[in-house]
Amino acid sequence: MTFIKPYLIRLSHCDPTGFVFYPNYFHIFNALVEDWFYEALEIPFDVFLMERRLSLPTVRLEATFTKPTRMGETVDFWLTASHIGRTSVRLNMGVDKDGEQRVRMTRVAVFLSQETDRPIDIPEDVRTKIAEFMRG
Amino acid sequence: MTFIKPYLIRLSHCDPTGFVFYPNYFHIFNALVEDWFYEALEIPFDVFLMERRLSLPTVRLEATFTKPTRMGETVDFWLTASHIGRTSVRLNMGVDKDGEQRVRMTRVAVFLSQETDRPIDIPEDVRTKIAEFMRG
Amino acid sequence: MTFIKPYLIRLSHCDPTGFVFYPNYFHIFNALVEDWFYEALEIPFDVFLMERRLSLPTVRLEATFTKPTRMGETVDFWLTASHIGRTSVRLNMGVDKDGEQRVRMTRVAVFLSQETDRPIDIPEDVRTKIAEFMRG
Amino acid sequence: MTFIKPYLIRLSHCDPTGFVFYPNYFHIFNALVEDWFYEALEIPFDVFLMERRLSLPTVRLEATFTKPTRMGETVDFWLTASHIGRTSVRLNMGVDKDGEQRVRMTRVAVFLSQETDRPIDIPEDVRTKIAEFMRG
Repeated sequence: MTFIKPYLIRLSHCDPTGFVFYPNYFHIFNALVEDWFYEALEIPFDVFLMERRLSLPTVRLEATFTKPTRMGETVDFWLTASHIGRTSVRLNMGVDKDGEQRVRMTRVAVFLSQETDRPIDIPEDVRTKIAEFMRG
Repeated sequence: MTFIKPYLIRLSHCDPTGFVFYPNYFHIFNALVEDWFYEALEIPFDVFLMERRLSLPTVRLEATFTKPTRMGETVDFWLTASHIGRTSVRLNMGVDKDGEQRVRMTRVAVFLSQETDRPIDIPEDVRTKIAEFMRG
Repeated sequence: MTFIKPYLIRLSHCDPTGFVFYPNYFHIFNALVEDWFYEALEIPFDVFLMERRLSLPTVRLEATFTKPTRMGETVDFWLTASHIGRTSVRLNMGVDKDGEQRVRMTRVAVFLSQETDRPIDIPEDVRTKIAEFMRG
Repeated sequence: MTFIKPYLIRLSHCDPTGFVFYPNYFHIFNALVEDWFYEALEIPFDVFLMERRLSLPTVRLEATFTKPTRMGETVDFWLTASHIGRTSVRLNMGVDKDGEQRVRMTRVAVFLSQETDRPIDIPEDVRTKIAEFMRG
């Protein structure tokens, strides 16, 4: 399954060239992952982080920027989960506008305990939800 | 009239205390002003900035922070226009959660030409729309 | 005493107009307060926050923006402490470039315990250091 | 040659886990590239961008995050140029702390004209400076 969500490119995302400043793509990709947790996995990301004391830091990231995105455009950000391991997940993400490819991104993230700062086995409820999403 | 919009407080808004880092409130207040242009005034903010070559910098700002806001909360950001001058506008804004006051902000902003970097009389179409909003 | 430090205005501080996007001034003002803790008060801000579990949230803020600041300028950010209360401190800050006034800011911040999320009496070592700085 | 610069990890770089929020690494990597232009290449980045109307957007990026970095740490950011093409440059960058590897990043960036939004041959003065840096 693919989780897709439109985001408006705001003034604050853009630099003096008028286009998205590339680190801000990653801010929006992180918003996308949060929204995927809230809306598709139905696991509130704030509970995951603040109450369950887990986190999901990035270990590996690759991105290709094909076309720039301009302030005022509303563009589709999308996400699929391409692999789920024992402690990590690989997310493929992209930015498109009317079928035109803007960005492609692969991010491998690991499930961590904030108590030990060490990787943990993906909690069963999270694994089940991600597996359902992958099949869905 | 009051323009109200809920925003989700994200990881990226919060600092190690788990609460909104105060400069990030102003990022969301700016998103609110953009959304007010797009949705209430029906003047696309990107056209205003990039094609008409105008801008709306802040000259004066006052803010009171009454209660902190935590990651994962969805809070109401609201805006009213309390004064419209020849070249400037005063916006009152706030953040509330279920009737509880979190932030109050007053921002005076001036209409500027990006060609001259000097204040200009508020363009007629913008003045009309803001006046309608104030009466509405 | 006045704590003064030059900061380079970077691409990431500026929006499509080429000038500092105003919320980013507050990011640099916060860097200034951190540097004041590290360099003038000699109280490491990360220890204050992460080990002593204190924080210093803003309760009141007023700012006047007189002239814009452009990408590539190195400008002086300065700070004085104008009042120290039982639980709070008032900081006056500004941005200047070659004697030209760009920004003036007053920020009242309160000392908080992260354990209780409530104001606390300013710790003695911090009070002493701030009082010394005020006299200095 | 390697351009190395220490940066303090600030509150604003960190999320509620107390560690650097990964998009903020890219903000600091961009500061590093700016400082490389100013200090090593001696080409003022603001002149490059605002007067010469060039830009240097990212087309490809790969990053590996080995160890997290905590608020309050001062860490070394470094940069080498590993390839210079007709219109693009490949930069290898990293974050280290006392010999411990934190982040590795490769970024391919292309020289663009802001007038045409198309790639251009690297200007001779820039090419000469980068080639000198690579040999140095």
